[in-house]
Amino acid sequence: MNQEALQRLMEMVRLGSGLTNTIGIRAVSVEPGVVTLALDKRPDILQFTGHFHGGAIAGLADHAAGGAVSTLLVESGRIAITADLHVKFIKAADGDTLIAKAKALKTGGTIGVAQVEITSVKNGMHELCAIATGTMRAVELPRRPQ
Amino acid sequence: MNQEALQRLMEMVRLGSGLTNTIGIRAVSVEPGVVTLALDKRPDILQFTGHFHGGAIAGLADHAAGGAVSTLLVESGRIAITADLHVKFIKAADGDTLIAKAKALKTGGTIGVAQVEITSVKNGMHELCAIATGTMRAVELPRRPQ
Amino acid sequence: MNQEALQRLMEMVRLGSGLTNTIGIRAVSVEPGVVTLALDKRPDILQFTGHFHGGAIAGLADHAAGGAVSTLLVESGRIAITADLHVKFIKAADGDTLIAKAKALKTGGTIGVAQVEITSVKNGMHELCAIATGTMRAVELPRRPQ
Amino acid sequence: MNQEALQRLMEMVRLGSGLTNTIGIRAVSVEPGVVTLALDKRPDILQFTGHFHGGAIAGLADHAAGGAVSTLLVESGRIAITADLHVKFIKAADGDTLIAKAKALKTGGTIGVAQVEITSVKNGMHELCAIATGTMRAVELPRRPQ
Repeated sequence: MNQEALQRLMEMVRLGSGLTNTIGIRAVSVEPGVVTLALDKRPDILQFTGHFHGGAIAGLADHAAGGAVSTLLVESGRIAITADLHVKFIKAADGDTLIAKAKALKTGGTIGVAQVEITSVKNGMHELCAIATGTMRAVELPRRPQ
Repeated sequence: MNQEALQRLMEMVRLGSGLTNTIGIRAVSVEPGVVTLALDKRPDILQFTGHFHGGAIAGLADHAAGGAVSTLLVESGRIAITADLHVKFIKAADGDTLIAKAKALKTGGTIGVAQVEITSVKNGMHELCAIATGTMRAVELPRRPQ
Repeated sequence: MNQEALQRLMEMVRLGSGLTNTIGIRAVSVEPGVVTLALDKRPDILQFTGHFHGGAIAGLADHAAGGAVSTLLVESGRIAITADLHVKFIKAADGDTLIAKAKALKTGGTIGVAQVEITSVKNGMHELCAIATGTMRAVELPRRPQ
Repeated sequence: MNQEALQRLMEMVRLGSGLTNTIGIRAVSVEPGVVTLALDKRPDILQFTGHFHGGAIAGLADHAAGGAVSTLLVESGRIAITADLHVKFIKAADGDTLIAKAKALKTGGTIGVAQVEITSVKNGMHELCAIATGTMRAVELPRRPQ
């Protein structure tokens, strides 16, 4: 992946996205087609049960899926926008940190598909707590973060 | 709907959910089987395009779907937890406010299904920007918000 | 809708699709953006419980969704291909006939979205048994059915 | 897995399901939590493009997902019924045979989740053409196939 393009993409992800910063999503690793993000437990992103809120998990999955597809688009000056996000919540997300690993599945044309696994980490133990799929549309990359 | 149970539900929704407060979700109306929520535009819940972030839309849809099913459960001392959330993003959510209207579809046993329409409001014009479906599991209502 | 284009579309739907004929899907009505199809109970499309098989319901929903979006594409010489199909089974499909009503939601570019309601008809009573959503891609209409 | 229970399950799958026989689904392998099924190309299960119809792919995915979860239920006298089926079509299913491999993800209570990969086989080459997820409910196994 072109380093300049990647830098631009990462900068957009870090600076440009209000919600991402608001809930505290951070990048763990970015490689072509695979993006891993993390989200640490904080009172302001939980639900009434004291576990991560489904909306925070969905936001994390969305961002990871978009990132994974974007890594394959960024050289052509494009970025992925979510058209379809589907999250299955399998276990209570009762850990201290969530890890979302998104993998882009190769597709043709202007559409990309990503699969995401979200694991809940508690006392060093990883447990699958949700899976997600996303369909992304490729759009032109803005000149600078807005 | 039993007024005391409804009060307890609303209190939980308002006080108990960190993420909901964090991103600013507010209730517009609650009636048996139908819940309408709103989310006003703020820089901290947008994405790099300057529109509402998909994660914020997903969180809004999730909360509305859970609320709609919960209204049918609350008399029996239960509340809905999301098992499955699917959001289709149809148009850019470029309005000043999002309105999510969730409707519970009657189901048997411990599972409920809700459909959600999310409209973007701009200069008084309403435009459908996303649709969502949720499958919810019924769980015992906690004694008090955590 | 252009009558010649519509005729060509309907002919393709009727003659061109092996599975559709195999399981006995029939058109009830076709208008711009809304397609209603029906499927009558037959032993060879049921599952072990004696009700309609989920695959038959999914096939019916898929065809209705594709048809609804195709009615909006056919004048430009295109037809809808399914990119994403999501079916929620709400009640046992234990009726004598299934009716699927698909409605296209307006979208831009080369993607269309449709919502589908599937009702089970038994002794003249209609009951919602499944809901579905589909995302469709527009492709060039083949010159003749294959 | 109890052999008698497994036999009963397989018999139900083979004899009891009208649609499965109608479109020609066959079992490739069954082990605890993982079921692989195949579907060979035949004119009566295609769509107008000459490729496998989305409904046939959905039916195959549904059956594989249900089977994978059922292998974990059968010892307790239960079988999986689909509550939610989501199929993403990634590439044209233009092969001679489709292979669906479903894997059950462990879940608690009366709900199971399965992930399915569907590959299209053409001239000995395998290509991922669709992915699916299913949420299943556990129900009592009927005494005998109906």
